[in-house]
Amino acid sequence: MLKHILSLSAALVFVAAPAHAQQSAPNPADQARTSDTYAWDFVEGLTTEVGPRQAGTEAEKRGREWAMAWLREHGFQNVADEPFQMRTWVPGDTHKAEILAPFPQPLVVQPLGGTPSTGPDGITGEVVYFPNIEALRNAPEGSLTGKIAFISHSMSPTQDGSQYGFAGPVRWVGAGIAASKGAVATVIKSVGTDRHRNPHTGGTSFPEGVTPTPVGALSVPDAMNLERMFARADGQPIRMKLTLTPRDLGMTTSGNVVGEIVGTDPSLPPVLLACHIDSWWNSPGAFDDGAGCGIAASAALNASRMGKPLRTIRVLMAGAEEVGLIGSEAYSAAHIDEPIGVALESDFGADRIWRFETNFTESNPALFAKLASAVQPYGVAPSPIVATGGADINIARDQGTAIIDLQQDGTRYFDLHHTPDDTLDKIDPDQLRQNVAVWTAVVGVLANERGAIKPKD
Amino acid sequence: MLKHILSLSAALVFVAAPAHAQQSAPNPADQARTSDTYAWDFVEGLTTEVGPRQAGTEAEKRGREWAMAWLREHGFQNVADEPFQMRTWVPGDTHKAEILAPFPQPLVVQPLGGTPSTGPDGITGEVVYFPNIEALRNAPEGSLTGKIAFISHSMSPTQDGSQYGFAGPVRWVGAGIAASKGAVATVIKSVGTDRHRNPHTGGTSFPEGVTPTPVGALSVPDAMNLERMFARADGQPIRMKLTLTPRDLGMTTSGNVVGEIVGTDPSLPPVLLACHIDSWWNSPGAFDDGAGCGIAASAALNASRMGKPLRTIRVLMAGAEEVGLIGSEAYSAAHIDEPIGVALESDFGADRIWRFETNFTESNPALFAKLASAVQPYGVAPSPIVATGGADINIARDQGTAIIDLQQDGTRYFDLHHTPDDTLDKIDPDQLRQNVAVWTAVVGVLANERGAIKPKD
Repeated sequence: MLKHILSLSAALVFVAAPAHAQQSAPNPADQARTSDTYAWDFVEGLTTEVGPRQAGTEAEKRGREWAMAWLREHGFQNVADEPFQMRTWVPGDTHKAEILAPFPQPLVVQPLGGTPSTGPDGITGEVVYFPNIEALRNAPEGSLTGKIAFISHSMSPTQDGSQYGFAGPVRWVGAGIAASKGAVATVIKSVGTDRHRNPHTGGTSFPEGVTPTPVGALSVPDAMNLERMFARADGQPIRMKLTLTPRDLGMTTSGNVVGEIVGTDPSLPPVLLACHIDSWWNSPGAFDDGAGCGIAASAALNASRMGKPLRTIRVLMAGAEEVGLIGSEAYSAAHIDEPIGVALESDFGADRIWRFETNFTESNPALFAKLASAVQPYGVAPSPIVATGGADINIARDQGTAIIDLQQDGTRYFDLHHTPDDTLDKIDPDQLRQNVAVWTAVVGVLANERGAIKPKD
Repeated sequence: MLKHILSLSAALVFVAAPAHAQQSAPNPADQARTSDTYAWDFVEGLTTEVGPRQAGTEAEKRGREWAMAWLREHGFQNVADEPFQMRTWVPGDTHKAEILAPFPQPLVVQPLGGTPSTGPDGITGEVVYFPNIEALRNAPEGSLTGKIAFISHSMSPTQDGSQYGFAGPVRWVGAGIAASKGAVATVIKSVGTDRHRNPHTGGTSFPEGVTPTPVGALSVPDAMNLERMFARADGQPIRMKLTLTPRDLGMTTSGNVVGEIVGTDPSLPPVLLACHIDSWWNSPGAFDDGAGCGIAASAALNASRMGKPLRTIRVLMAGAEEVGLIGSEAYSAAHIDEPIGVALESDFGADRIWRFETNFTESNPALFAKLASAVQPYGVAPSPIVATGGADINIARDQGTAIIDLQQDGTRYFDLHHTPDDTLDKIDPDQLRQNVAVWTAVVGVLANERGAIKPKD
């Protein structure tokens, strides 16, 4: 190990040296030279030439076609779009929340994914304020009949993204609980940490037997304003008109894009690098997840340029992730009998990787140590957490495969997540490069690992 | 002067001492105790209970009524709404810019104030890209016939706001130049320094004899995206459909809100503290200019609580500033024969004051020195610039009155200016307090100045 670390350090020192010296072992200096272009070019091109890619729509299809053309152009083999059927929801044109009394004014709102329309004439009702989801859970049955529920929360930025679990239920289950207590509609404070008038959309779910009612996310400043209205209303009822006109398109086709760097030993199960190609309709999905696809594809290319890998490196750009991991599930269903060697995913923005964990730290300590050495130069520390993988690698969980989580800094992530603000300009090229360098180092090790990679039982 | 400085310092040291000791001279320590509530309460209440206040509309009227009630409640005298007539424009409901080819996707746009409608079916045309206003000026006559002009620029944040003059012409005159060369419509990169998908609206003008054509501001990230499209289109035409449906309401009534702290010597011309009460439709106008009105009103109240002033302190909350200083002009026309002693305005956000200048520095050096001492404890330095005052004190310029400019830090101002993001949460209460403390110190000096305050000839 010591020798490996020293050679890494030497390579980093000579990062500006010419690139033509071919080496058989992964060389992080090569990564640094080659990684600038691919990931940035991918996410810049996808967000510029395609833009938003709502799952199941023609725009997502253009995104898949664009990604396939890019993969082919960059020398990937076996590039394909593996289709699946899905029920497709689109947001429609009208997204309005108006306070009618006592403080008439418009609020900025967007619908949550998959939710029903209010109809073009909207729904009018008294707003009942719940400062958090627990207060809503404690509301008596039937107490919201004819009312519009407003569910708030408080969320702080966290490096590990953990407050998504703390605040997320407001979006994930809030409208379902409100509807079960009679609410005719729901608005939530956006699950986000920014202060911009760009709502955070996202999926929600309704309990079995509860008829879904319309639900929208207010931007954080608008929700804060509504909270202040309750403080100032002095018990007067606050009335809102909510108009959201999403539509159900029925069944349409989505797909998973795959492409491979074919390895020299076809008997070894491939390394799977995953991301998702769809975005919400309201942004071009730069952080979520254009960057992730750029990082994964870039790492595969960089690793292959350091010498043909032993294992095949497969990139999976899943479709229809945002609306419920549909692509990830379809991919697993279609390929469950084709073993994956190890899987990793990039789907948490483009800020620097600071921590990593695996599910084989104890069962394969030598490989774990090799990986730890490979990423150490980039300021990435091992953690004792057992990796469980992200949304796009259902197949790894379903197969019980080895998983690595390369954790990105999430401090800014929930400023942008699912908002119109998730645009290219938010990506810091230096941090994107660090992601690619770390991924390249990891993929270089994994793709040349001859032994079985066994997760902990 | 030395004694004055020492007494100020002593007062600051004992800032936490009880407030009941009445003194005849202004005491900044009292300001610090009393300033927290008024300015914040004003801007918090106005933005929460009224929200956006587009000039000439019913919402602006509610804003004036709210402000008058607040002034009366806080002991102002002679509170009034001085009406004037104006031509009123409203933005309408549809604001869309869609790239049709070669990279179909929606862009975020809002109309510039006062501009005509595209009609509900929109205007479709090839986009011609001008990286700056000079490039547009150099375009041949007639070269934009049937085209949509896209005018860009680059603007950096500046503490003194000076890049507004550098980038502003794109908005102020860009559409007029484009229309004069045949453009059927124009989009501009928002004149702003942020990276959020919230366009910066604002006024524009068309040269005499040029028929106005529709014009919208793209958010900065959308304009950056459109620039990238030109870089990637490789000469293919970029086609856009622009739909903006503003409406002209004809003549309506707006008004100027005034209120006074009546001084003990009616023979002395009053001190005029100005701001504007209207905002654009797209935000509740916290920075622009709810905060300014809160600061001015708060300073008047604080100064009066330090002992009844010699001069009357008049607060002017002008109507219809955003759409062309209509209220400020109406106020000047109505009161031109009633001399003002000295005027100052707060209309540049709520960040700290760092510099001040007057137009009587040389003609009244003793008063200038007194003011410099009064604001020095708050980190406010004198500048050699000759003050010319802001939008809301036309009367001072028209009368040739003394003017003081208390310059706020503008570094963040053009992140928010004329965007939906100009919301209460952007106000830093500490910096707002510093504004009030500085204003209180200045108003305390001015309102107790017995001598004539003469501007430099």
